[in-house]
Amino acid sequence: MWRQLVSLLPSTLRPVGLLRSSSQQPRHLSTRRTPPPETITALKELLGDRLSTSPSVLEQHGTDESYHATTPPDAVAFVRSTQEVSEVIKVCAATSTPVIPFGSGTSIEGHISAVVGGVSVDLSGMNKILEVDRQNLSCKVEAGVTREQLNADLRATGLMFPVDPGANATIGGMVSTNASGTTTVRYGNMKTNVLSLTAVMADGRIIKTGSRARKSSAGYDLTRLLIGAEGTLAVVTEVELRLSGVPEAEKAMICSFNTMKDAIDTCTTIMQMGIPVARMEMMDENVVDAVNKYSKLNNPLRPSLIIEHHGSAAELEEQSRIVQEIASDFGAMDIEVASSAEDRKRLWSGRHSVWYAVLSQVPGSRGFSADVAVPFSKLADVVVATQQDLRDSDLFGTVVGHVGDSNFHVLIPFTDEDKEHLDRMKAFAHRLVNRALVNGGTCSGEHGIGIGKMDYVLIEHGEAVDVMRTIKEALDPKDIMNPGKIFYGSPRS
Amino acid sequence: MWRQLVSLLPSTLRPVGLLRSSSQQPRHLSTRRTPPPETITALKELLGDRLSTSPSVLEQHGTDESYHATTPPDAVAFVRSTQEVSEVIKVCAATSTPVIPFGSGTSIEGHISAVVGGVSVDLSGMNKILEVDRQNLSCKVEAGVTREQLNADLRATGLMFPVDPGANATIGGMVSTNASGTTTVRYGNMKTNVLSLTAVMADGRIIKTGSRARKSSAGYDLTRLLIGAEGTLAVVTEVELRLSGVPEAEKAMICSFNTMKDAIDTCTTIMQMGIPVARMEMMDENVVDAVNKYSKLNNPLRPSLIIEHHGSAAELEEQSRIVQEIASDFGAMDIEVASSAEDRKRLWSGRHSVWYAVLSQVPGSRGFSADVAVPFSKLADVVVATQQDLRDSDLFGTVVGHVGDSNFHVLIPFTDEDKEHLDRMKAFAHRLVNRALVNGGTCSGEHGIGIGKMDYVLIEHGEAVDVMRTIKEALDPKDIMNPGKIFYGSPRS
Repeated sequence: MWRQLVSLLPSTLRPVGLLRSSSQQPRHLSTRRTPPPETITALKELLGDRLSTSPSVLEQHGTDESYHATTPPDAVAFVRSTQEVSEVIKVCAATSTPVIPFGSGTSIEGHISAVVGGVSVDLSGMNKILEVDRQNLSCKVEAGVTREQLNADLRATGLMFPVDPGANATIGGMVSTNASGTTTVRYGNMKTNVLSLTAVMADGRIIKTGSRARKSSAGYDLTRLLIGAEGTLAVVTEVELRLSGVPEAEKAMICSFNTMKDAIDTCTTIMQMGIPVARMEMMDENVVDAVNKYSKLNNPLRPSLIIEHHGSAAELEEQSRIVQEIASDFGAMDIEVASSAEDRKRLWSGRHSVWYAVLSQVPGSRGFSADVAVPFSKLADVVVATQQDLRDSDLFGTVVGHVGDSNFHVLIPFTDEDKEHLDRMKAFAHRLVNRALVNGGTCSGEHGIGIGKMDYVLIEHGEAVDVMRTIKEALDPKDIMNPGKIFYGSPRS
Repeated sequence: MWRQLVSLLPSTLRPVGLLRSSSQQPRHLSTRRTPPPETITALKELLGDRLSTSPSVLEQHGTDESYHATTPPDAVAFVRSTQEVSEVIKVCAATSTPVIPFGSGTSIEGHISAVVGGVSVDLSGMNKILEVDRQNLSCKVEAGVTREQLNADLRATGLMFPVDPGANATIGGMVSTNASGTTTVRYGNMKTNVLSLTAVMADGRIIKTGSRARKSSAGYDLTRLLIGAEGTLAVVTEVELRLSGVPEAEKAMICSFNTMKDAIDTCTTIMQMGIPVARMEMMDENVVDAVNKYSKLNNPLRPSLIIEHHGSAAELEEQSRIVQEIASDFGAMDIEVASSAEDRKRLWSGRHSVWYAVLSQVPGSRGFSADVAVPFSKLADVVVATQQDLRDSDLFGTVVGHVGDSNFHVLIPFTDEDKEHLDRMKAFAHRLVNRALVNGGTCSGEHGIGIGKMDYVLIEHGEAVDVMRTIKEALDPKDIMNPGKIFYGSPRS
């Protein structure tokens, strides 16, 4: 209903913040909920000097990698165990003090912002790898373990944790935003790779969801309800993960095309034919240009693909051959193939440096990263329209895509000082999300909602948002779990 | 906590129904909720002769393929559209009349039983394939479409819907139990293959979950909350599914081993090495014996594996070669490989006829199918202990397993007349589930909970069941959505 309504409006009539007005904003989000002195005292008693109210610590815990204006918390609790998280939440619940989980601060939709104040629960000290079960291809970690730490620890086992969102996020943070990345086309996202969770609910109860079995039909899937819930239902403290074997061999190919449509049609054909790919990344000509300038390269200024295969040497040989044939059918040029670790590293170096390359184009800038996913059948049209929109808006922006998942980002460097540019950028981002929604896609492929996309959840899910809110209100009646994220709080508050 | 408690008890001290006593059963489940005359009248007005109270229709809608004593509904509503389901639910909600969704009646844990009476909502008339989006590798179907109907319809497209639970279930039923099967090791279960749902909530509201994009981080995952919810939260009316390309080629191998442990270690090694398999099925010697007798074959009476690969001809060649090497390392005998469709059909014929072969061993019997999944690292021990338990219990039972998912079934033929055998069988089944739970597994890999495993959900999930119940109560405050399934109703009722 919402979607139909919005799709009927010409995009120029749908300004940012259409759905939000100060009168609609629920009262509790305009009322600060600073923890009362007794809460701070009780937390100090519990944690000693692991409860901090130092301005620099507060500032750090109010900062993420987003472009949003974020708010620091009133205190930070450096927790060490699930039991401690439970105690902290009980203390906070007694005075309706908000609890905001914090991992490594790499979220990019303002997830860690203490919108109405409260206590940041820093889980980075819960960084123990509790168990690696090689035979079950699984491990159990505390939520503060980072992706890179885990993979370094696994190195000797021949196993790896494949989900790679780019940033060195904590596993708990990756659970909470349902992270994915370049390898998701083959290995899935967090929903695919989490077996079970230990989590603390809004009343301090500790629950365990799921099991160590690979699949289950035993009751409601609380595991996947908490994945992507952004800390609004529970604080995740321990995670059991599926692991994958390190592939016997890897092979990567880079090539370029005359048009974006040719590049994307190549990917669609590969997916339709079911050719196994481990990564399939698209870069538009602006990305190639930025990378060329940043790394002093001379790659052809055309839409480009990098496609990687994992498997046995013989499998890769065949898969790569077929993919090269398909790409050639769509006019691929400058095909370069890499098998050795060194050559693959060189081939990927451009893609891996995109963020810095793009930012380097505008000295002193920060980065904005849009994130949408659409049906395959719409991807080429949506990307081409988005590039046109960038030109029409006189914006420098670069398109990179996890094409195997039909998910793409637009990276735009910006400075807070240039307000006019900022407004143009936000208006563009708004049109981009609506373009994705009108085409049957989603307002977030992998970054989450946070404080940045609450309007779009309403448009994307309509009545279903009321169902989400009913669940939120039932499990967190005082609205203390990361309030002001995903949706505009409880109508009951 | 529950799990620890139970694991401390010797299994002989844990009789069937330990956790359930008549005093614990909530009042509303002992109180019949027959729809009042005005409800039947209103439904008749709505549906005309598509509302039936004929005894044979009621009887049919009170029967599934389970061994449980099931209860027929008071009326059956043959619905034709989402809107009609919404109207039916509104009428029922007005008098707190239970609503029990019905697809093809192939569930095996009594999901369709009208435990306290109510209206069966038969969705088999909602059998339209609404759209096939070849480029997006997806389709949209009404919930009453069956798996076989869908795949027959897709035949000309080169696409297939890969989830195969054996029975010709409806897609809505497969959603509601989170079905999986032989191909899940490669293609995933329903949670992997559903993109979005249209569902009717307990107050008649129609919601749409998810999107046509392959992944999303936009809000709570209501799609996966409703998958496996067994109709206790909503009636699913339309489903968007991921499709897969029909593989270019398929290759299957059968072989046998001296011990069950050798067979399972073969599978574990294949999974650890990441060799792609499309199916990996285990049959114990009793299965082979039953199939030999039923189909007049002469297969060696040993634990056997069937392993299938999907891909290009060259990939299959290599994958099959590696798998044969691994199997040989574990002493595989009588290796037989099949590539042509005809040979593969013959090779699989034994596995596909298991149900009938096993039942034919006891004339006039019905079948009981136990269903657990455990961590890989425990599978061999749990299966071997289960076989010993069958012998100790003097029970004829056969073990078949989807080994790639570490999920296995024990099929036991039984007759209602032989009460002593029935008691022994139930006691065995109880020990089997506890054995799975004590080893970190789940009480249901793919059949669901229904009325048969409510005790075990409590043991498996402990405090988390209270969280499930809180969600149930919030979304279905009158407890009208398939009441008496998954857990013992609401304490508030």
